[in-house]
Amino acid sequence: MPPISASSPSSPINAGSRPLRIALFGFGTVGRSVARILIESAPAGLELTHIFNRNVARKRVDWVPSSVIWSDDPEMILSAAKDSANAVDVVVELAGGLEPAGSWARKALSAGKSVVTANKKLIAYDGLELEALAAKHNCHLLYGAAVAGGIPVIPGLEHGLAGDRVERIEGILNGTCNFILSKMETGADYATVLAEAQGLGYAEADPTEDVAGYDARAKLAILMRLALRAQVNPEEIQTSPITTVTAIDFSYAKDLNCTIRQIARAERVNGHLAATVRPMLVPQSSPLAWSRGTENMVITTGHYGGDVVFSGHGAGGNPTAVAVVSDLLGLAHGSCRISIPSTPTKVGTELEVPHYIRFLVNDRPGIVAGIAGALAHEKINLNAILQKPGYPLDELPFVVTVEPCRTSALKRALVEIGRMPALLEKPLDLQILEK
Amino acid sequence: MPPISASSPSSPINAGSRPLRIALFGFGTVGRSVARILIESAPAGLELTHIFNRNVARKRVDWVPSSVIWSDDPEMILSAAKDSANAVDVVVELAGGLEPAGSWARKALSAGKSVVTANKKLIAYDGLELEALAAKHNCHLLYGAAVAGGIPVIPGLEHGLAGDRVERIEGILNGTCNFILSKMETGADYATVLAEAQGLGYAEADPTEDVAGYDARAKLAILMRLALRAQVNPEEIQTSPITTVTAIDFSYAKDLNCTIRQIARAERVNGHLAATVRPMLVPQSSPLAWSRGTENMVITTGHYGGDVVFSGHGAGGNPTAVAVVSDLLGLAHGSCRISIPSTPTKVGTELEVPHYIRFLVNDRPGIVAGIAGALAHEKINLNAILQKPGYPLDELPFVVTVEPCRTSALKRALVEIGRMPALLEKPLDLQILEK
Repeated sequence: MPPISASSPSSPINAGSRPLRIALFGFGTVGRSVARILIESAPAGLELTHIFNRNVARKRVDWVPSSVIWSDDPEMILSAAKDSANAVDVVVELAGGLEPAGSWARKALSAGKSVVTANKKLIAYDGLELEALAAKHNCHLLYGAAVAGGIPVIPGLEHGLAGDRVERIEGILNGTCNFILSKMETGADYATVLAEAQGLGYAEADPTEDVAGYDARAKLAILMRLALRAQVNPEEIQTSPITTVTAIDFSYAKDLNCTIRQIARAERVNGHLAATVRPMLVPQSSPLAWSRGTENMVITTGHYGGDVVFSGHGAGGNPTAVAVVSDLLGLAHGSCRISIPSTPTKVGTELEVPHYIRFLVNDRPGIVAGIAGALAHEKINLNAILQKPGYPLDELPFVVTVEPCRTSALKRALVEIGRMPALLEKPLDLQILEK
Repeated sequence: MPPISASSPSSPINAGSRPLRIALFGFGTVGRSVARILIESAPAGLELTHIFNRNVARKRVDWVPSSVIWSDDPEMILSAAKDSANAVDVVVELAGGLEPAGSWARKALSAGKSVVTANKKLIAYDGLELEALAAKHNCHLLYGAAVAGGIPVIPGLEHGLAGDRVERIEGILNGTCNFILSKMETGADYATVLAEAQGLGYAEADPTEDVAGYDARAKLAILMRLALRAQVNPEEIQTSPITTVTAIDFSYAKDLNCTIRQIARAERVNGHLAATVRPMLVPQSSPLAWSRGTENMVITTGHYGGDVVFSGHGAGGNPTAVAVVSDLLGLAHGSCRISIPSTPTKVGTELEVPHYIRFLVNDRPGIVAGIAGALAHEKINLNAILQKPGYPLDELPFVVTVEPCRTSALKRALVEIGRMPALLEKPLDLQILEK
C-alpha cells in the first residue's frame, strides 16, 4: 500500500507534524490483525506505540517492532502525562463488553485521547454518552467496526446516505447464526452445525449471545440511531432465538420458495418504530437469501434513494481490522463523523406482515377447524395449509401461512390455539419477509 | 427528517454560525431532486440560495421558495464578491461533461467556493487537478454522486475501506446497459429493448456513451484511483460495445449457467494493472448476475477484508441527489475526504481468464479442426464446444469456451481463425468471470 499523505485542508489531529500514536487495548484476533495491517501496510500518519492486554507476556509476538511497548497496566497508558513516552493520541478498544472497556473509553476521552472501537455493546448502550464526552474534550469516538465488520455500512450511512430519509433496515448482522442457518438449509440439524461452528471458532462455547439474537440486537440499535435517527434501548428490541428452527422448517420454507435466516429488522410504520431480531422466512428472490456462511448483509430503504445493499465479511480478524484502520486513517486525515441527530424513541413490535406458523400435533379431527376458527376470530386470513407426508400421526408437523396481519392479533389467536389439547408444543411463529 | 446539528469538534466550513449557501448549477432531473430534498427535508446547515440554468425562465417551478435567486448568468454567482447577496459557499455542478462544467468548477474553487459534483467525466479526466486546486484554495471538491449515484461506493471506499489494500474491482456501472442486457436475458432483442429504454428515458437518442462503455469507463477510472490507488487515463481502458451481443449468446450463456452483463473490471495482476469495460459472461452464482434493470453494483476485493458488495440504484434523480445532499452535509459538518494518494499508472489489457467465443460460419468439414488447431498453436486449452440444433448450416452459430489463457495469445489465435473462409463474421469474444 502506498503511503498516505495528509493533504486535507481540514484540521487533522496530528496536523501533519507527527504520526498518530496508537495504543491497542486487546491483542486477540482483531487486535493482532490491526497490528499486522499497521505494520505491513505502514500507512503514513499512523504509528503503533503500545499494546495492552491482561497477562501480556503470553501475547508477545516477534513480528511487532521492538519500539512498541507491551503492557498489562491500562493506567500506564490512560493516565500518561502528555509528552511522556507513554502518551498516545488514540486508544483502540478491542476488549469488548461494557466493562472494563467502558471505563477505559471514558478515561481516554476525558483525557482528550480519541477512541476507535469495534465494541457494539458499548456503543449500543453508551454510545451517545461517549460521543458527548468526546465532543466535550475535543476528541473523537469512531466505531465503524462495531457493525458488520469489514462492510462499510456505518461509513456508508454517515457519509453517503445522510442526505436520505431511511425508512427501513433489514439485515443479517450475526455471522454465527448465518453460518448455522445456511448450513441447516442444506439438511444438517442445529446441534451438529453448532458443534461445527464451535470447532471452527465461529461460535462460543456458550452461544447464547449469538443464537438468542442479543449480538444482532446491539448492532441493530446502532444502525437505528444512524439510519432511522432513533435512540433506542437495545433491550426493547424483541428477540427470538434461532434454536427453535428445525430441519422440517427448512423443508416447508423451500416449498414456499423461501429459506430461513436470522433477520434484524427495524422500520417506521404509521409513525411508530418497530424492531425485532428473529429467524424469518426470506424469499429466495431476496438478496438476504443469497448470503451464505458467516457473511453479513444490510439493506437500507431510503425515501429518496430506495434500496441499498451492503454485503461482505461481517466478522473475523482481518475484515474487522480493515474498519478499525480505516477509522484511524480518518482521524489522521482530520475527517470526522457526520453527527446525525437522533431522538429517544420507544420500540414497538406491532407490524403487519405475513406469518409462517408450524404446529406439532397429535392428529385428530377438528384441529384445522380449531386453528382456522381462532384465526378467523381475529380477522386473520389463512393463506395456505401445508402438510408433508411421511410423519407419524401422533407427532405430526404441519404449517399454516397467514396473510399480513397485526402482530398483536396473531399473538392473541396463538394463545387461543395453544389451549387446544392436540398441540404437543408451542407453535413456531416466523415472520415472512415480503420481498 | 429531523434537523441536523453541527456538533462536530472539527472545523466545519460554516463554523456553526450560518448555513452553507448553495448554488445549483443545472436544474435538470438531478438538480430538481436536490432542490426537492433541500426544501422538503430542510437539513440544518444547508440553504439553497441560487439556481443557475441556461434559459432559466423555462425551468422555474413554484415549489422553490421565493428567496432563491434564479439566474442564467454563471458569472453572477461565480464572480460574486464575498458578503454580496450572490456570494455562495458551495457550487453544486450538475451540468455534466467537460465544458463548461470544468471552467465553472475551476472558477469556483479558485475563489474558495467548494464544489460538489455528480460529473464522472470531469472527475475521471480532471479530478486530480481540481483536487489540487481545492486544497490550494482551502476549500473542498466532493463527488460522491459521480459513481453509482445513490450507492455509497465512494464514501465506502474513502471512509470504510481505506485501511485495506483493494486488489480488484468488478462492477456494473451503467444502468442503461444493465437494463438492456437484463431485458435481453428474457428473450428480447437489442433494437427492441434499446427503443424501450429510450422511451423510458433510460437511454439517450444517441446511446453510444452508454452502450460503447465510455460512461462506465470514466466511472471505473475514478474507482481505480480511490480503490487501486492508480491514476489512469480513462481512454487507456479498453472498451467493447454491448451491441455485438445477440439473443443466441444469452441462450448459450444460459447453457453455461451464466448470463451476460456489461462489466467494468480492474485488477492488479503480477504487478501490472489491467482494466476493461465490456460485455462478459457472468456465472448465475455471482451477485453481478442478480442485478436487474437499471441497478448498479460494485464488488471490491481487498487483501485483508475480502469481497464487499455494494448495490442499489446507480442513477436517476433522487438516488443521485441523495449522494449530492450527503456530500453537502459532509461539508456542513466539517468532515472531509480521506485523501488517498495515487500513482500515475499505465493500463494494460493482459489478463489470464477463460473466454466464450461465438462463431457464425457457413458449415463445412474442417472448421472445428481449424479453430482447435489455431488455439492449440497458442497453447490455449479448449474447454467445451456448444452447438444448438435448429440453425441453417450456411449460417450456423456455435460456441467454443476456452480455459484461462492470456489475452494476447487468444487475440493472435483469433486473428489466425479469422482468416478461415468459412467464417461469416468476426467471432464474438467474451471474457468469462470466474466466480
